[in-house]
Amino acid sequence: MALIVQKYGGTSVGTTERIKNVARRVAKFKAEGHDIVVAVSAMSGETNKLIALAKEIQANPDPRELDVIVSTGEQVTIGLLAMALKEIGVDAVSYTGGQVKILTDSAHTKARIQHIDDGAMRSDLAAGKVVIVAGFQGVDAEGNITTLGRGGSDTTGVALAAALKADECQIYTDVDGVYTTDPRVVPEARKLTTITFEEMLEMASLGSKVLQTRSVEFAGKYNVKLRVLSSFQEEGEGTLITFEEDSKMEKPVISGIAFNRDEARINVIGVPDKPGIAYQILGPVADANIDVDMIIQNVGQDGTTDFSFTVPKNDLGRAIKVLEGAQSQISARQINGDDKICKVSIVGVGMRSHVGVASTMFRTLAEEGINIQMISTSEIKISVVVDEKYLELAVRVLHKAFGLDAIQ
Amino acid sequence: MALIVQKYGGTSVGTTERIKNVARRVAKFKAEGHDIVVAVSAMSGETNKLIALAKEIQANPDPRELDVIVSTGEQVTIGLLAMALKEIGVDAVSYTGGQVKILTDSAHTKARIQHIDDGAMRSDLAAGKVVIVAGFQGVDAEGNITTLGRGGSDTTGVALAAALKADECQIYTDVDGVYTTDPRVVPEARKLTTITFEEMLEMASLGSKVLQTRSVEFAGKYNVKLRVLSSFQEEGEGTLITFEEDSKMEKPVISGIAFNRDEARINVIGVPDKPGIAYQILGPVADANIDVDMIIQNVGQDGTTDFSFTVPKNDLGRAIKVLEGAQSQISARQINGDDKICKVSIVGVGMRSHVGVASTMFRTLAEEGINIQMISTSEIKISVVVDEKYLELAVRVLHKAFGLDAIQ
Repeated sequence: MALIVQKYGGTSVGTTERIKNVARRVAKFKAEGHDIVVAVSAMSGETNKLIALAKEIQANPDPRELDVIVSTGEQVTIGLLAMALKEIGVDAVSYTGGQVKILTDSAHTKARIQHIDDGAMRSDLAAGKVVIVAGFQGVDAEGNITTLGRGGSDTTGVALAAALKADECQIYTDVDGVYTTDPRVVPEARKLTTITFEEMLEMASLGSKVLQTRSVEFAGKYNVKLRVLSSFQEEGEGTLITFEEDSKMEKPVISGIAFNRDEARINVIGVPDKPGIAYQILGPVADANIDVDMIIQNVGQDGTTDFSFTVPKNDLGRAIKVLEGAQSQISARQINGDDKICKVSIVGVGMRSHVGVASTMFRTLAEEGINIQMISTSEIKISVVVDEKYLELAVRVLHKAFGLDAIQ
Repeated sequence: MALIVQKYGGTSVGTTERIKNVARRVAKFKAEGHDIVVAVSAMSGETNKLIALAKEIQANPDPRELDVIVSTGEQVTIGLLAMALKEIGVDAVSYTGGQVKILTDSAHTKARIQHIDDGAMRSDLAAGKVVIVAGFQGVDAEGNITTLGRGGSDTTGVALAAALKADECQIYTDVDGVYTTDPRVVPEARKLTTITFEEMLEMASLGSKVLQTRSVEFAGKYNVKLRVLSSFQEEGEGTLITFEEDSKMEKPVISGIAFNRDEARINVIGVPDKPGIAYQILGPVADANIDVDMIIQNVGQDGTTDFSFTVPKNDLGRAIKVLEGAQSQISARQINGDDKICKVSIVGVGMRSHVGVASTMFRTLAEEGINIQMISTSEIKISVVVDEKYLELAVRVLHKAFGLDAIQ
């Protein structure tokens, strides 16, 4: 008998029929004698619908009130799943993030979990109940509703597993594991039986939608055994996220290709080419709680230079407003944004021991006439920003170039 | 400068455009120097959509989980209205029932308000903010989400007015006041400038959708000045609910005609005609927290009798299940239900001083060939149950028979 936390994503609970299927799967594990805690997302499409509604009122929705609105999506799902379990004779109880309670900081729309009370859950489990928790949400110390940002339900699942010291955290999704890349873009993509934690972290942070970055970080930090599985298949071991990269006998150079349409590029043109300018530009952006990803600074000419960086597409308007407020201080000639970009990344721990990976990547893209706008690298990944229209082409040719199409 | 509680119903907040209109109206009152607390319903249609979703999972939804689900409707509206106010430069903050907090008992789907904390609201008002509260919902002492039942947002509005000792509680709706009957059924229906509290209570409890019964009771108990207004008209005094029936110079015999399609009839056939049988039948129904409205017991024959009563249509399935469970104890030959009925009621404080009201009602219906299935009376109302198909006809002929068509 184990304590298992299962997380079901939006597609897995996208209709009442699918919610009933989830209930049957949960009941099966329960019948095997396991204690089950379930974290759920909003039904697919709901969160976007709620955000669209909010934007009909405010182009840049007030973050506190946006959280009040979007958190209702998961609240509906927890009630429906609890009912579906009761309907098949399994006792269950639902909790919102605030009811658990999942305490977060006050950074609305991107809050971080600080603490989870396990008292109520433990006594429900002891009473034989399945505990269902709304993913993606929490409350701050003042009782304001917060959300964890896109994909935050994964983080909720992992954080619950960590708080409860669960034996395994199972992430059920609409795919049966982690693939070399998104099979909707490259049909030849292959499922990985294992992936190292580091690789998964890069894949997640680079836009592979299978797991949210923070959830992988969380799992690493608290040593949570994490498995990605399909909620649409009865069988299957999914992909296990391994902690020991050495457990893999043969490392491929590249394990996967991630991509991301969710960033936008901001260009700050004609700023003085002097020390401290990066801080002057990025300081106000960070103060506005906007994440900056890639950064490049051009070689200066005539004492001025151009500075570019990427931010989440959603934050583009706000970031530009912040910069325009600081425009005279940073003496920028012009500030503009481009949301027609995408980021394509190759990831693999094998990169450490192989040379020429970058040149293979750049040559492959050049042969297709794809211009690289920005580059960023880490020990096990290389990311490039290209025009959004080249996304599918870039991923496809890189997948082939790094031998990921081949059957292993 | 006054403290005004305004309540906006589902139609008044049915679209984001309408929510913006509500914001402008609230801003106008605020600009006049008043402190404003707003209670809102779910956007029209949302609650029914959520209930339908729940019923796809469970024919008789688990009450606790149903409350978790349906309470999200109002939660979306409070966020949207807070945004709409901020968008036009009025500071505002939203609260769910649990956040306020509005403490209720634990009778899920029909909870009663026990206490409202006014601390947070008072300090927000002192800080110049408009306070927006989700109608229809609260939390019990254990922190479970509860709802107040259909139309419960009116009760929230009145209860907030009572807790805050507000100067007036304004109920904004899609009609511009209380009418002699529903104008959609009888186009000749007239708006009343005042109606006594007692009449309003009967109208509400009998199915006039303008105000929920409990909200009128609440207003009476705490002496809350209540006014019904249209959210779609800029001007208009609406209908004021008066406490002194004597303030009316000339009382019409009948003030209004209410009707209700929301009840179903249960027949318990062939039970022993002995004392205590009514309690044996209705006891289990009351224990299941199902409201019983009209009750009739036929004259017994051969030592057995038939017993009929009405329950909310939503509770029909559950009530029959409860009775079937007790069938052997109550020795009933048969138990069946009929949900194709409606209740039509005439209401008026003038009834006290006029004779022949009942006979006028029964003769009018008989002349149209409408069979009366059940009758119930109080000091100021007479209700009859008839076949649902006769509803419009019955209301129309009674409206005319009691002189309500005439211009006063």
